[in-house]
Amino acid sequence: MKIAIDTLGGDLGAEEVVKGVLSARETEDFDALLLGRKEELEECLSKYTADLTGISVVDAPTAIHNDEDPAIVIRKKKDASMVVGANLVSQDEADGLLSSGSTGALLASGLFIIKRMEGIERAALSVFFPTMNGFSLLLDAGANMDCKPEYLYKFALMGSRYIEKVHGKSNPRVALLNIGSEEGKGNKLTKETYELLKNSSLNFIGNVEPRELISGGYEVMVCDGFAGNVALKTTEGVAMTLLSLMKQAMMKNLKTKIGALMTKNEIKDVLKGLDYRETGGAPLLGLRKPVFKAHGSSDALAYRNAIKQMVQFIKTNVISYIEQGVKEW
Amino acid sequence: MKIAIDTLGGDLGAEEVVKGVLSARETEDFDALLLGRKEELEECLSKYTADLTGISVVDAPTAIHNDEDPAIVIRKKKDASMVVGANLVSQDEADGLLSSGSTGALLASGLFIIKRMEGIERAALSVFFPTMNGFSLLLDAGANMDCKPEYLYKFALMGSRYIEKVHGKSNPRVALLNIGSEEGKGNKLTKETYELLKNSSLNFIGNVEPRELISGGYEVMVCDGFAGNVALKTTEGVAMTLLSLMKQAMMKNLKTKIGALMTKNEIKDVLKGLDYRETGGAPLLGLRKPVFKAHGSSDALAYRNAIKQMVQFIKTNVISYIEQGVKEW
Repeated sequence: MKIAIDTLGGDLGAEEVVKGVLSARETEDFDALLLGRKEELEECLSKYTADLTGISVVDAPTAIHNDEDPAIVIRKKKDASMVVGANLVSQDEADGLLSSGSTGALLASGLFIIKRMEGIERAALSVFFPTMNGFSLLLDAGANMDCKPEYLYKFALMGSRYIEKVHGKSNPRVALLNIGSEEGKGNKLTKETYELLKNSSLNFIGNVEPRELISGGYEVMVCDGFAGNVALKTTEGVAMTLLSLMKQAMMKNLKTKIGALMTKNEIKDVLKGLDYRETGGAPLLGLRKPVFKAHGSSDALAYRNAIKQMVQFIKTNVISYIEQGVKEW
Repeated sequence: MKIAIDTLGGDLGAEEVVKGVLSARETEDFDALLLGRKEELEECLSKYTADLTGISVVDAPTAIHNDEDPAIVIRKKKDASMVVGANLVSQDEADGLLSSGSTGALLASGLFIIKRMEGIERAALSVFFPTMNGFSLLLDAGANMDCKPEYLYKFALMGSRYIEKVHGKSNPRVALLNIGSEEGKGNKLTKETYELLKNSSLNFIGNVEPRELISGGYEVMVCDGFAGNVALKTTEGVAMTLLSLMKQAMMKNLKTKIGALMTKNEIKDVLKGLDYRETGGAPLLGLRKPVFKAHGSSDALAYRNAIKQMVQFIKTNVISYIEQGVKEW
């Protein structure tokens, strides 16, 4: 198994990617194609004493920036690390692509170079969302703005089969993000999607309200990309702001600083459950080959966990399991 | 000025409403029509030594529950406090209605009994949203699921004129909730709404991403009721969950409990800015007469603040100012 790994997309630079790859190889069996600036990567690798058999470097020195138009940039920047990676995957020279670069460009690379699975109209960005009961998969987290009920049904199917195979949980609970818990609530899209899901063979548990998102009790949450992005990014914004306010309060004076020291470990403990690095990667479900998006600020731990997920994804052949599900529908 | 006040909708019972009314009358000049169970209200009022001139009780003993169908219940429960209140307002026997009961039923009472303003297709639930720079008005927070760009434009106009008159802030900044900050981002609705707002006379500052919602920097935030409800309720859920986790961590053992005591006041201070009770009420903008929704768990302080807002709303004649703006469009 060979995984193409983009080293130019992340905020923390190529070294964190390399560290993550080496760390993942301690437990996982895979070859790595590192995409980026050849010299920099080779110099970086030379620092480590680990066995580097199976790790190769592909020179793809151009980075894609978040403000570039995805559809244009992937046509123009042929030597961009992400584009080179997508081409390698498309030509079966790699079994999957991991990148922490621009989500839009990665999605465009997936759609235009790797292409969609048979029977799937839209690929969904599928993000692990921390809840009080562990992580749940939320899709679509922002790839598709205006959706039809059939798209959401397929997101549910893809998410469900992904959780079954990669996380070994049978019959995962599927929820629909909606503004009320009762049937008949919501907009046209959620009302019609409710009907589709209710009459499907999926383990549909009904609507889940945004207030309960973080409570968990489901493995897969479906929504259109606009609502999903609002839910996810609102969560990030509120959590970051609240934590920074609390920190600010605790650093106010000597007394509060001592108080902060006395509570620090316990607070860290409860917040650990919300650490996005524990899952590391978000699959773009609906593509013919595995493509994973890592968080822009991923560190070695996040890359390691993303790679572990990808190895499991490739090993269990999730894609053909999803394609089979689409055919049976 | 006479305000009809529903005493049956709140979680904390009629006594908190009465306390809030009496407290508001210390600074505001208004008469109150208390709607609810006559005997209970009279007994409650008899406990206070305040001057009760101008406070009257209207027997409307039936409550409306959150799980009842709004459109049906307002036709069937003629003696429901909320319905009686809407009728009094519609017949010009009261200048406005305040209720902490079911949002759906209050909206239905407003739409079917009080009716919409001229030139307004949809009334919007307009909620004060706590941000790092004070409160901003978010609309629609959940009244209208499937919206057209024109609706959102009118939400922006209504919110803008409301802030000008009631909060005395000229040229309020209007933002569009969207999943990217650049023009051209988002779904069909937000793209088209962007164009309308850009070419309007409103002080449109562009898209604001969900992650920045809580940062503030705008006075009015427009979105469709589905997205608005997702943003608002996600915020509530995340904030409640995080605070309860922190509390749990701080109550873990003797050491953390002492630490908690040492930081308690400072933490309370920073969180005070996020207290919904400071604004108290959310106007249903777009109706012919003032209708305000108070939070279901409102206490006397929240009712007092909601009433203060309503008094200002009625005094400054926001509704005709909005109607004038609609005509000029």
